Formats: sequence, C-alpha cells, structure tokens
Amino acid sequence: MSSEAASAVAGHNDPVIQELRAWLGDRLSTSAAVREQHGQAESYHPSVPPDAVAFVESTDEVVEIVKLCARHRCPVIPFGTGTSLEGHVAALKGGISVDLSRMNEVLEVNSDDLDCRVQAGVTHKQLNDYLRDTGLFFPIDPGADASLGGMTATRASGTNAVRYGTMREVVLGLTVVLADGRLVSTGGRARKSSAGYDLTRLLVGSEGTLGIITEVQLRLFGIPEAISAAVCSFPTLEGAVNSVILTIQMGIPVARIELLDEIQMDAINRYSDLDYPVQPTLFFEFHGSTHGVEEHAETVGGICAELGGGDFRWATQQEDRNKLWQARHDAYYACLALRPGARGGATDVCVPISRLAECLLETRRDVDAAGLLAPIVGHVGDGNFHLVFVLDPEDKEGWTQAEAVNKRMVERALAMGGTCTGEHGIGYGKIKYLNAEHGEAVAIMRQLKSALDPDNIMNPGKIVEP
Amino acid sequence: MSSEAASAVAGHNDPVIQELRAWLGDRLSTSAAVREQHGQAESYHPSVPPDAVAFVESTDEVVEIVKLCARHRCPVIPFGTGTSLEGHVAALKGGISVDLSRMNEVLEVNSDDLDCRVQAGVTHKQLNDYLRDTGLFFPIDPGADASLGGMTATRASGTNAVRYGTMREVVLGLTVVLADGRLVSTGGRARKSSAGYDLTRLLVGSEGTLGIITEVQLRLFGIPEAISAAVCSFPTLEGAVNSVILTIQMGIPVARIELLDEIQMDAINRYSDLDYPVQPTLFFEFHGSTHGVEEHAETVGGICAELGGGDFRWATQQEDRNKLWQARHDAYYACLALRPGARGGATDVCVPISRLAECLLETRRDVDAAGLLAPIVGHVGDGNFHLVFVLDPEDKEGWTQAEAVNKRMVERALAMGGTCTGEHGIGYGKIKYLNAEHGEAVAIMRQLKSALDPDNIMNPGKIVEP
Repeated sequence: MSSEAASAVAGHNDPVIQELRAWLGDRLSTSAAVREQHGQAESYHPSVPPDAVAFVESTDEVVEIVKLCARHRCPVIPFGTGTSLEGHVAALKGGISVDLSRMNEVLEVNSDDLDCRVQAGVTHKQLNDYLRDTGLFFPIDPGADASLGGMTATRASGTNAVRYGTMREVVLGLTVVLADGRLVSTGGRARKSSAGYDLTRLLVGSEGTLGIITEVQLRLFGIPEAISAAVCSFPTLEGAVNSVILTIQMGIPVARIELLDEIQMDAINRYSDLDYPVQPTLFFEFHGSTHGVEEHAETVGGICAELGGGDFRWATQQEDRNKLWQARHDAYYACLALRPGARGGATDVCVPISRLAECLLETRRDVDAAGLLAPIVGHVGDGNFHLVFVLDPEDKEGWTQAEAVNKRMVERALAMGGTCTGEHGIGYGKIKYLNAEHGEAVAIMRQLKSALDPDNIMNPGKIVEP
Repeated sequence: MSSEAASAVAGHNDPVIQELRAWLGDRLSTSAAVREQHGQAESYHPSVPPDAVAFVESTDEVVEIVKLCARHRCPVIPFGTGTSLEGHVAALKGGISVDLSRMNEVLEVNSDDLDCRVQAGVTHKQLNDYLRDTGLFFPIDPGADASLGGMTATRASGTNAVRYGTMREVVLGLTVVLADGRLVSTGGRARKSSAGYDLTRLLVGSEGTLGIITEVQLRLFGIPEAISAAVCSFPTLEGAVNSVILTIQMGIPVARIELLDEIQMDAINRYSDLDYPVQPTLFFEFHGSTHGVEEHAETVGGICAELGGGDFRWATQQEDRNKLWQARHDAYYACLALRPGARGGATDVCVPISRLAECLLETRRDVDAAGLLAPIVGHVGDGNFHLVFVLDPEDKEGWTQAEAVNKRMVERALAMGGTCTGEHGIGYGKIKYLNAEHGEAVAIMRQLKSALDPDNIMNPGKIVEP
C-alpha cells in the first residue's frame, strides 16, 4: 500500500490523535519526518507512515494508549530502535506508532541467578554496558544496536546463537499489553517450568501482532574465563563453508563462527579500515577455560587447514576482539558504503547445516548471473546466511532482479528443509513465503491472531493477513 | 470427579465406541483393567478410566479418530507410556484414550544435521539404543522411560537439562492432529527461524489439550570426547545445595548435577544394591574434551571440599556410569520400595537458584514436622527438586498431610519467584496452582484453548478449566 493510501485512512483516527495530544503533549508527534522514519525503519520496503507517533514512558501509558485505540479500532504499531528489515513497522492501515525507546531502564540484575529485567527500549549494547564489572554478559547481538523489546518481538539472534541460542532461548518472561489493553505477565524467573502453555514463546517472534512487549526478563551468562577470536581466509567459499559444517558436526562448542564472502571482506576492509585478505573468510570465537579454548582452537585450526584455509590470525586482547566484531557487526553498513547513495536490501534464510554449502554456492552463482552487487555474510554455525542487495533506490530493474534472486533463494532454502527467515522475521515482506513454508499451520496462526486480537488492531498486516 | 461419575457420562459415547470397534477390531479395548490403567498412569490421583482405549498405528488413524470424536463431541485423551504424574490421562469427562505406544518407529536420523524424526510412541531409551554407533545421543531423560510424544506434551526434562535444555529446547518441529481432525506440521529442520508464531513451543507442554502429537523432530547431540561422573557426600543438605549454587553461578558447564537427600540415598542403596554413604549426596557428570572435563571436575571438587563435601568417588567407565545413573533414574521406584504396598505421590517445584537452599531446607523441615516419609531428589542445577510422598494408599490422614505439605511447598516456590512445576506439568492435579502462578495469563491460555478446541474435546479438564 502506498503512503498516500494509508493517509487516506488517517481521518478515521483523528479523535484518537486529538485525545493523545491533549494527554501526551509534545510526546505525540505528527511531523512528516518523524512519521516517515517510523513507517520505514532500516527496511528496503517503502515507508508507510503512521498517523502519529507516541513516545511512551511507562507500561501504564501503553495500556492507556491501547485501550483508547481499541475503543476506536485504531491500529497500534510498536516501535523500538527502527532497525527491523521486513517492513515490520509499516503502518499498512494507518494508526499510532508506539515508540518505546524512552522506556530504557534496566530494572534489575540478579547476578546470583544470572538473570535480569529490562524495559523494552533498552538496547543490547546498553545492557552489556550496564553489566560491565558484574562478570556477566548478554549474548544476543544482531548487527544493529536493537532494543531488547524489538529483538524479542522479531525472535532475533546474531553471532553468538550457535553457542547461546536466540531470543527464543534467553527470554524467561514478558510483560505485555494485549489488544484490549489487558496487562499480562508471562513466564517467570525459574530456569524451567511445565506450568501451562508457553505464552512467552508464543509472543517471542510475534512482531507486535499479538501485543506490545513493555518489559523483558532475560537470562545472562558468565563471561568465560578465556576468550579467543581468530580470522581464517580461504581460497574458495566451498572450503570455508565445509570447514563450518565439519566443525559443527564434530560438536566443537564454538561460540561464534561467521562467514563473510570476498565481496563482504572488501567492504569491511574499506569501511572499518582493516587489511584482511579479500577472500572468503571465517571469523571464530572460542569461549571456555584456558585449556579448553586452546584445544578447540587447535582442532578447528586443523579442520580449516585440511580444507584449504590459511593460518589463523588471532585476536586475544579484548581491544582487538572488539575491533574484529565491530567490523563484523558493521557488515551491513559496510555494504551500503560500497555504492554511495545506495540502499540495502537485506534478506536471510536458514537451512540444515548439511545443505549449507549447496544453498550458499547456488545463491552466490545466482547473484553473479543476475549481475547484482550482493555480499553474503552469515551466522553459518546455525546454517543461517544473509544477502544484502546494494542498489540505487531508483534502480527499478535492479530491485526487480533482486526480488527474483531473493525468491529463488527462499525457494531453494525451503526445498532443503530450511526456513524463509532465520532471524529477520516476516513483517509484510515475507508473508508470501510463510504459506509456502508452513501451509496449514498458517491457518492456525491466523486463528490465534483472531482469538487474541479480534479487531485486528495490533500491527495489522504483519505475519498473517486477516 | 469419581470414576462412577465419569462412567455415567459414558453412554453418550457409545456410537463412537461402536464405530471404532467395527473399524479397529481388537485394537479397541473396553476391558476394565485396560481402561483403569489408561485413566491413571503413575499418578497418585485416582484413576478416572476412559470409555475405551484405541491402540493406533498411524497418524491417519489418529486423524480419523479425532474427526469421529469431533462429530460426536466425544473427548479424546492421548496416552503414551502412562508415566505422567499429575492426572494427565484421567478421563474426567469420559471419552476415548488414544494409545500411541504402537507408533514407535524412528523415522529418520540425519547424522550430519544432528537431528531425527520419530513417531510419538518411541521412548527416549529406545531412541538412544537406535542411535548406538552413530556417535550421537538424545539427552532428555526423565526417570521413567517415557515416550517422546508424551515428553513433548508435558515439556519434560531430566538430569541433563542444565547443559542440554528441556523438551522446549530440543523439539524442532511436530506433526499434530488438531481438535477438528486437521493435520498440521509445525517448525522445521532449520536450527533457528523467525518465520511466524512459534506453534511448536505452544504445543510443547500443552498436555494433549490443543492436539495430539503423532511425530516429533528432535535435535541430537554428539557424544562428547570425554565423560566423567562423580559422587560426593556431604554432612549437611545445606553444604550440598550451596555447592550446586556456587557451581552454577561460576558458570561451570556441568552436564548433570543431581541432589539426593539422605533418605533418598538410603532408598537407592537398598533398591539398587549400592553402598553409598547415607548422607546428602551430589551426583555429577562432566562432558567435554579430556582436559576440559579434568579442569571442570577439579574446580567443582574444590568447591565441594570447601563446603564440607567428602572425596569425589569417580565413575569413568561407561558401565559404572550406567549403574550410577540407572540408580538415579530409579529413585522414584526406590522410594516406593521403602514401604511395601505404598503408593508414591511425586511433586516438583523449581526456583531461581539463589533461593534453592532456602526452599529446599524449609521444605525438608516441613516434611519432617509433618512426620511424613518423603525423600527429596532434584535436578538442582536448574533449581528444580522433587518430593515423593511414600504412603499407604488407604492412609487418608497421611495423604491430607501430604497435600498440605505440597501446597506449602508450591506457595513457598511461588513466593520465591519460582514455578509450581519444573517438569511434571499441570494435568488436573496442579490446576489450582496455575492461577496463583500466572494470574491473568491463565485467561489468555483459556482463550487459546477455546480458539483451537471450541468444543473442549481435547483432554478436557487439564491445564485450563473451560
């Protein structure tokens, strides 16, 4: 839907906006720039601005806003840091964007229990800064410094998932405002529970379509005794991928194992001022005891050498490791910098590890045949990889080609028993692939959505179409 | 409800039984003994027999049975190995017990991807026997040799959960027959996915109230290079529990860390012909590389010594380890053997690890003050522990006392931020505690139940009351 079409619906929501303005004052914005940004995020899908943006400061305010919107059947779209990629925040049916970025307080850290509670707007970097000196850390690290509420809502993961899991595994409980304004707590602080339906995990990955997450209870982890990172270049993509597969199949507990193809390496060398060889490259990190880390690194080094990899280039000092991983996290922005003025079209799939080489190499060939600029980077220990199409926003033919390559990549992943998205989510950009992946199960998702949000006001048009 | 009351309802289901008998022949049983057993399992709650038991052999048969029952609004209760503990299989409103134990085929093992697919009736020991010689194993191991379908339905865990997670973490996907007979596949083989609502985890722990699980896709793990088990006795329960807490807080990756109190140790010495000291005892197992296992064992040994523990008694040979863990798994049966003719009333709670000592010691004092025989045993690395009341089935006052101790233990756990059940589930025995734990969230559970099973035919009366 174009932003004009969305605006045409807007008049319906005027009473809501008036009431909100009277109440929130300048914490309600209807400025074009603010609305435009809140309807887009970092998605390559066109912005579909909401009618207004409410900057909330408490769970109670979210409750009142949702109640008001429910009375007027006005859509409500939660917004964290605006770093989602599949049009998650587009106001397809107009409505109010609820910006939670000011709810950014770390509410409690229970060091003894390795858990914490945060407001939804706290980002993962902010949490880790807060945890400095506690000996604990939070491992889930998508490239962008996303909010933990948004990461929960999109079931985010990142580079540590192969060892520590994704948001699915680390969220212990939630505070959520439902479509009728009811406030619900799910889960708890116990490490495991068999007490009733797992509402927490139903909400993790629900992308704001079932409720607005305002607080998150999270697992934390002890910083390991020893950490060691290494970079290894390969003459071929195949050698790099096969090294990953063998490492995983041998059950070696790597904490991170990331693949960057030669185009991506060129991009990060330029963007982050590094001098790595412009070759397919693996970034590793090992966590454990001093001896354990040495043993694992030695075994993986042996695997890589066997499959054509060069020497490991080590980063044992925290400063060096930070530089290495910051470069990896900036991969997306490095891609964009390859072509000034370009926009990035990021997409991801995830396949069983035995099919990873095949899926990745076929995708690489497809990208090249289409003559597109699209580096590949991946959390390959999980079988998850990303393509970033780097294109001029006005290059219509290029975007059409990119969409075709994306479609073929998704179909390839599904045919291999994989998923249409490993960590970006569905938003509205991948709704068309959800049916292909889940078939009849999508009808069940729709039933659940109708049961919890009968008037379809919670981020309508995402994940399931009504 | 008494079994008489359930029988009174039975007449309604006669047309279903007649149709099933014509179709299934002697795979439909209405014998009193079979019905009695299928209405009880290992639960201490009284048997509430179903009207008939259907021994199914395929997913298609389950579909047809559910469709037939749906037409007649006849309850359907899935049954695996009958080892559930909270009245999960009681036919509170009559109906058909669907026994899946003959659906016991391992459908595929993908060694390269560390996953497999099994029919719901395969047990965890059967799967591990099947995996022998593949270098892989399946870690979730409740005491009983339960079916993987039942373990999924109750969100089971066991001794390895502290390292490998529970059924929540290891189930990748499911084949499920819903209340209207629709067949749905959830999840997939990718290690992670952000594609839509997590129906898999909504069904894990749903205890047959949302659908009947007929196939399960599971993660597998490589058998570690080195495994070492050890037993350590303590003069006090407190010393043992505090050793666990410190081990977990230090982030030492133990694979198993189990507590048995002195009464339980006495019971397993007798039952399994062992000669451990009759003292509070920890059972450990370490998995990893040879050096890693040595390092971790040394660190934990230091912690235990500091807190009053004796020397580690090692079991490095597989045969010795098997004997040790079999004794641990037989703890429940060992309890029963303490008092011939007795019945066991097993219950469990789980609390944040920092509250474990307090919760456990208060519970121990409460049991002793009530003059009950009730050994304590626990997966204490997760903060989870069990009480088994060992009582004569006719000892009414004893059972009343036991229920009161159980109630106080649950209230104690909830007050400490814990859960009313770590791994046994709700069934109908703990429905009264679910509200106390989850409050308004129970209303959401009820809405989901109504959405997917509007006529309330799937294992009615469990988890949520209509």
